[in-house]
Amino acid sequence: MQPPVLDFWFEFASTYSYPAAMRIGAAAQARGVAVRWRPFLLGPLFKANGWTTSPFNIYPAKGRYMWRDLERICGALDLPFAEPPGFPQNTLLAARVALVALVQEWGEDFCRAVYRAEFGDGRNIGDPAVLVEVLRQLGQDADAVIGQSQSDEVKARLRAQTEEAAARGIFGAPSFITDDGELFWGNDRLESALEWAKR
Amino acid sequence: MQPPVLDFWFEFASTYSYPAAMRIGAAAQARGVAVRWRPFLLGPLFKANGWTTSPFNIYPAKGRYMWRDLERICGALDLPFAEPPGFPQNTLLAARVALVALVQEWGEDFCRAVYRAEFGDGRNIGDPAVLVEVLRQLGQDADAVIGQSQSDEVKARLRAQTEEAAARGIFGAPSFITDDGELFWGNDRLESALEWAKR
Repeated sequence: MQPPVLDFWFEFASTYSYPAAMRIGAAAQARGVAVRWRPFLLGPLFKANGWTTSPFNIYPAKGRYMWRDLERICGALDLPFAEPPGFPQNTLLAARVALVALVQEWGEDFCRAVYRAEFGDGRNIGDPAVLVEVLRQLGQDADAVIGQSQSDEVKARLRAQTEEAAARGIFGAPSFITDDGELFWGNDRLESALEWAKR
Repeated sequence: MQPPVLDFWFEFASTYSYPAAMRIGAAAQARGVAVRWRPFLLGPLFKANGWTTSPFNIYPAKGRYMWRDLERICGALDLPFAEPPGFPQNTLLAARVALVALVQEWGEDFCRAVYRAEFGDGRNIGDPAVLVEVLRQLGQDADAVIGQSQSDEVKARLRAQTEEAAARGIFGAPSFITDDGELFWGNDRLESALEWAKR
């Protein structure tokens, strides 16, 4: 029998996607649920709301709270935490590279390493040099991978994935969708989503 | 030794404040934390963001998700759930009555009964007759209590409480603030807030 599958929709700029990405592997394995990692871009969805930046920037009280909350969450999980230089980061290249990476063995490691660089080490993941470094540390041919990520096919796939996210009711990240279409939003809903998936 | 105190900031129109109000008594007692119930109005805070209604109405995908999420949460807690007729409800009178009630023995029962009427039974708590019914079921002299709630003192106290909420960094409900000023937002942060309070 195939294990139930949970779609993990994430955006590299999303702060709460960081602890979710770090937790989901072990949490899913413990429940016998398979995870499909699905990068997408929040920018187009936010633009449809009339937002040109993150709501955490538009609404300062909410933003201040989020950074403090994220710091507490990372502390409780023993995850390193540092605010990246500028928020939200430009994640277009990282998301395209993730689409190339996720059809290979090291794809999830790449995603975790990007989050770790951004919110653990406070690096600028919009800088291609940072992604090159991440890829090399994973033993990959960075130039080849980044070259592939620039293909029309990958660009179209990221657009399609982002459109699918919107069509499935997603409005933020991280989001989780079960086989039967149940949507859960937020790092704090990971366990509920996994429990639903295995029902 | 006095027990640690957690301030529970709630707004009667707030959907996620419903499960929080129903859970907080037992959850706090189990941890030896005292709870101070603090009603306030979200309207003035939302207005400062340029919103004339709930963001759940302004952003439909988020609103659809919230109602489904709330239904799941109530299901898991065995709480009755029904969408009220119109959202958000006008909660000015309910909040004023709560200020009168909360200096008396039956104050928390009143707050829970209002939430239960609104989100458990789908009643319109903006209708004074519904509040009269709730007060009578608690054995109170409804006319006298509602009369008191209309005093200038109570009106000023609700305004002051709402201003204090904003000044303390609150931007949504439910929110929890510990003795040392740590802010937690959302029904799903209740346990974290209680654990922080008793450190």
